[in-house]
Amino acid sequence: MLIDCVFDRITAKNNPCIVGLDPVWARLPHCYTAGAADPADALLRWGKDVIDSVADLAPAVKPQMAFFEVFGGAGVEVFAKLTAHAHARGLFVIDDSKRGDIGSTAQAYAEAHLAPDGPIGADFLTVSPFLGTDSLAPFLGAAARYDRGLFILVKTSNPSSHELSGARTEGGETIRDWLAGVVSEAGRGRIGTCGFSPIGAVVGATYPEEAVHLRRAMPRSLFLVPGFGAQGGRPADIACCFAEGRGALVSASRSIIYPDGALDASRTAYCDLVRAQTIAMRDAVKEAIL
Amino acid sequence: MLIDCVFDRITAKNNPCIVGLDPVWARLPHCYTAGAADPADALLRWGKDVIDSVADLAPAVKPQMAFFEVFGGAGVEVFAKLTAHAHARGLFVIDDSKRGDIGSTAQAYAEAHLAPDGPIGADFLTVSPFLGTDSLAPFLGAAARYDRGLFILVKTSNPSSHELSGARTEGGETIRDWLAGVVSEAGRGRIGTCGFSPIGAVVGATYPEEAVHLRRAMPRSLFLVPGFGAQGGRPADIACCFAEGRGALVSASRSIIYPDGALDASRTAYCDLVRAQTIAMRDAVKEAIL
Repeated sequence: MLIDCVFDRITAKNNPCIVGLDPVWARLPHCYTAGAADPADALLRWGKDVIDSVADLAPAVKPQMAFFEVFGGAGVEVFAKLTAHAHARGLFVIDDSKRGDIGSTAQAYAEAHLAPDGPIGADFLTVSPFLGTDSLAPFLGAAARYDRGLFILVKTSNPSSHELSGARTEGGETIRDWLAGVVSEAGRGRIGTCGFSPIGAVVGATYPEEAVHLRRAMPRSLFLVPGFGAQGGRPADIACCFAEGRGALVSASRSIIYPDGALDASRTAYCDLVRAQTIAMRDAVKEAIL
Repeated sequence: MLIDCVFDRITAKNNPCIVGLDPVWARLPHCYTAGAADPADALLRWGKDVIDSVADLAPAVKPQMAFFEVFGGAGVEVFAKLTAHAHARGLFVIDDSKRGDIGSTAQAYAEAHLAPDGPIGADFLTVSPFLGTDSLAPFLGAAARYDRGLFILVKTSNPSSHELSGARTEGGETIRDWLAGVVSEAGRGRIGTCGFSPIGAVVGATYPEEAVHLRRAMPRSLFLVPGFGAQGGRPADIACCFAEGRGALVSASRSIIYPDGALDASRTAYCDLVRAQTIAMRDAVKEAIL
């Protein structure tokens, strides 16, 4: 089962931290972009270098689709190639596309992103729940069919995230608590020997009090925890997203892929910087959750 | 201004109905798919035929990104090519991708879908508001900068849509009413001589009572009204999405592009069927809103 393989990988690498791939052209090291004849080629070379640099350190990478869509169809192809490259290097791929739609449209998104013989073939997909439970069903169906995982947005890391997630249902629950119930229930049938389900939740690192509460409400759901580093989430804040040190993947993007000195670094020096940032994050998070 | 051009186009074609492009491979006429060496070529040929068939009848088309993403990067390229083709044929393009994310990620989505020199270059983009107002800001900024429009999901056509849109904020408003305020306010500075703003709302045809209320709450926002036809929205139901017969675009996909007899029709016969369905929808909607 996927979920047990993920836990094995976290154990083997002794690291619950994953690396976000958010390629912003102007911020990529010049060694990739300067004089690039084809931006997509440059993007692919950069992404492969990052993946190769962290392959022995991290259990997964999280490419962010928006930054690939900016390059059009060619960018989406790079996303797919980097997914394949990450798989070849023993990394899981969390496809951060925050898709959400209804019926056959949701089904098409699920097939596009998660089907093993589909164009992308990621292991996990982030999903937005705005349209309600019937919009989640096709994603849950595809995830079950292909033994893939989802991270449903429950409480994101941004300042406005409370506006919708803090609204109250007819029953008086907050939307985030209600979603926690939906996520928990949806994952019930897919709990691995690790004790967790691949039907997970996005819970930002920037609201630790709510994270404590949500961890209790979803004791068996894998958490994806963004907002570490550049967005202000501190190591101590993310500890409460874990259940006795397990059950969460902490993600950082900018702090790892755009460290000081990266812009003018050589390819080798850049890869060393990325490795150093990945190790520093691992150590900070490991210390916080012990 | 975009919004005035849209209203002129609706007037010129005497039709507020738009055609959804939701290509499902198994449902496309065999004349496009049978023996197709390259699915993307078949998709492009089909899409161009639909666009050519409705170019003199409809003010806009609404391609649904999910059905193109299923074909990977090649599918996204077809989406872009169909956008250019629709523009060349005098149709606006509503890019139905329901994107939503924060900060620089939202910015990247906005650039990818709306920038005139970007890979897609659509006129309007549908946006999901789950992450809150700070996640809408980059989309609003890009829309203003490029004179493009947005349709923010407020109340969708599916049965579960009330779960989040009906939850209540701290102030006691429903999320859909609160979003109506956000949409209305965001469009205030961009009202054209037509009296409407291109910062619009998605309001499903399947909940007429709520549509009446939302129309009052957003008197100057353009509505995108899905759910007509296959999803059960009736002509009488959509009338209340209009303000004295103006200010809404009604969308249908399956009822137009997959009519009875389409699967085995010749290319010419299929195009005639699509035209006939487009005319029938126009007449039904025109009668309802008079």
